[in-house]
Formats: sequence, C-alpha cells, structure tokens
Amino acid sequence: MNRGLIIAYYGNGKGKTTAALGVALRAIGYNLNVCMVQFIKGEWDYGEIYSSNLLKPNFELVIAGKGFVGILDDDHDIKEHIESAKTALLIAKEKINSLRYDTIILDEINYALKLKLIEEHELISILEAKPPKVNVILTGNYMTDQIMDIADLVTEMREIKHPFKKGIRAKKGIDF
Amino acid sequence: MNRGLIIAYYGNGKGKTTAALGVALRAIGYNLNVCMVQFIKGEWDYGEIYSSNLLKPNFELVIAGKGFVGILDDDHDIKEHIESAKTALLIAKEKINSLRYDTIILDEINYALKLKLIEEHELISILEAKPPKVNVILTGNYMTDQIMDIADLVTEMREIKHPFKKGIRAKKGIDF
Repeated sequence: MNRGLIIAYYGNGKGKTTAALGVALRAIGYNLNVCMVQFIKGEWDYGEIYSSNLLKPNFELVIAGKGFVGILDDDHDIKEHIESAKTALLIAKEKINSLRYDTIILDEINYALKLKLIEEHELISILEAKPPKVNVILTGNYMTDQIMDIADLVTEMREIKHPFKKGIRAKKGIDF
Repeated sequence: MNRGLIIAYYGNGKGKTTAALGVALRAIGYNLNVCMVQFIKGEWDYGEIYSSNLLKPNFELVIAGKGFVGILDDDHDIKEHIESAKTALLIAKEKINSLRYDTIILDEINYALKLKLIEEHELISILEAKPPKVNVILTGNYMTDQIMDIADLVTEMREIKHPFKKGIRAKKGIDF
C-alpha cells in the first residue's frame, strides 16, 4: 500500500509549522518534492522564507496569507484576508492535483478555518478528491470534527510551558 | 536579552524529532550552526541522515545511540545501550560547551532517561552549566519534573489519531 496520508498538527503549543518543515526536510532527503502554502502568517515569518531557500529546488513556498488577523499590527481589512485565503485555497488545490509534489503543507489552514476565511466544505472536497498518492499536511491551532474524521494522523501540540510568559523575548532562529 | 532557551518536546505523538529538525532548518536559514546528537534511534532513521546532508555545513548529526531498546529487532545488550548513551551524553556536553553551535538537539534523550540509560542529575548539571547563549532542545516521549522545571519552553505532542492503528504501513519520507 502506498497511499498518501492526511496529517494534521493542531493545538496551542509550539512546533506545528516547525514539524511540517521537518517533514519537508525528511521528504526532500529522499529527493521528493514538497510545497508549502501559507494561509495566514506569510508576511512576517522570515525564518521559513530564508530556510526554504536551502531546500530548493525540491521545496516550494507559496506565501498567500496576509499575516495574522487582528494581531501583530494587522492593517489589513478582513475582506482582504478572506480574498487571500480563498486564493490560497485555489493554489493549494492546484498544487495537490498537479502531481508535481509528494507532500503539500497547508500551513495555518486550520486557523484560517477558525477565522472563517475559507469554507470547510471546500477544503474537505479538495481532500476527498486528492490524488491517492499525495500527502497533505494541515497545521493550525484549531481542529474540527470533519478534519479529525478525514485525517489519518493527528497530533495535538499542547503548550505546557512558554518562555514569553516568563518575559523572555522571541529568539531569532527559534521562534521566528 | 539574548539568552538561549532550554526547549522540550515530549509526549506520545508524532512530530518531536521532526519539530527539532524544523528548528534546525530555521536556525540554519539564519546561517546559525546546529548539532543533533541522537541518543537512541541512530541506526535506522534514514530520513534524518539523508536530509541532514542538505543542511551541511551548518548542521552536524552525531549518531550515538543503538536503535530502540527492546523493539525493532534490537539485538544489543542493555549494557551496550548504556555505554552508547553515556558516550552520547559526553559528546553532547562537549558540543554544548564548545560554543561552535547556536542550538544543540539532544534527540530522544528523554527516552534514554526513562530507560535509565543515563543519569538525570548528569543531564541537569550539563543544562545548568551551559553557556548562556546556547539553545538546547530535548526530545523524547518521557518528561520528568526536573526537566519540566529547568526548561523554558515545553510542548507536549499528543497522539490523537494514528494511521498504523488503521493498518496503513509507514511511509517513506513521512514516518522514517
């Protein structure tokens, strides 16, 4: 059996996107191709942008999102966020169905769902119709019953202890 | 403030080592140096070995462990495991104190602690005496009160749903 998996990393803990990047790294170690479509935090995640250059040509990063909604000096209108997220979903669908990638990471898509930037039934349709061999990884704080149901592998990342709460600032290369 | 963090990923879910690899990838994106010392699963984790080559020269992988104890056709004597784990801890200490690396990943060290392959007080001493700027990441299923206490950032990865339980075999580039 060699069917692709639908994998979800959710929860309030650190490591969801980082784990997805680690999956990309492993897959690329086998000379497989990976595409990451960022649904929300595109504008400020410099670490991912820099490091993705190391993985070319097997890794493609599509920055579709408009930063976090309502935080981090967000100056975008909600309609602009919805438009970006819908575009991201169209891109994701094209990437998944292109058969050019072994694994597609839909980064922060679960959070985009929570914010109602995209329609869940549209995502579920894409997942249900995906080419059998393709792996899809969904990340984001949120989890829904339907995604839990369709996913093969689900891990919750729970924040147990966080340094920001002790007053330590975000550290380059670790947090951003 | 620019002090290094002690970070722990534990729990029974997927993504602990993968998240650590993702941290390596981000750090290397900033041209920082990372060393990963594998305490247990060295002999069979091909994905990590292959992909680490992509990150050279900023990433060093030290395979010190002897495979999982008691599983996966383990044919090593427990004394051999203890010797390997103790050597791994000595190497880890040297790497941490060398100041050649921004981040040192002690992979599966928490599991080595659980199996009593290494002494917890020795690890705690190393962490307490580490150079202030160095980040240390601890991974493994297990978590102890002392590590919880000394760590700055702790995330539990909880297995919510796992495909092996549905009879799907491990997939190259995703699971190994």
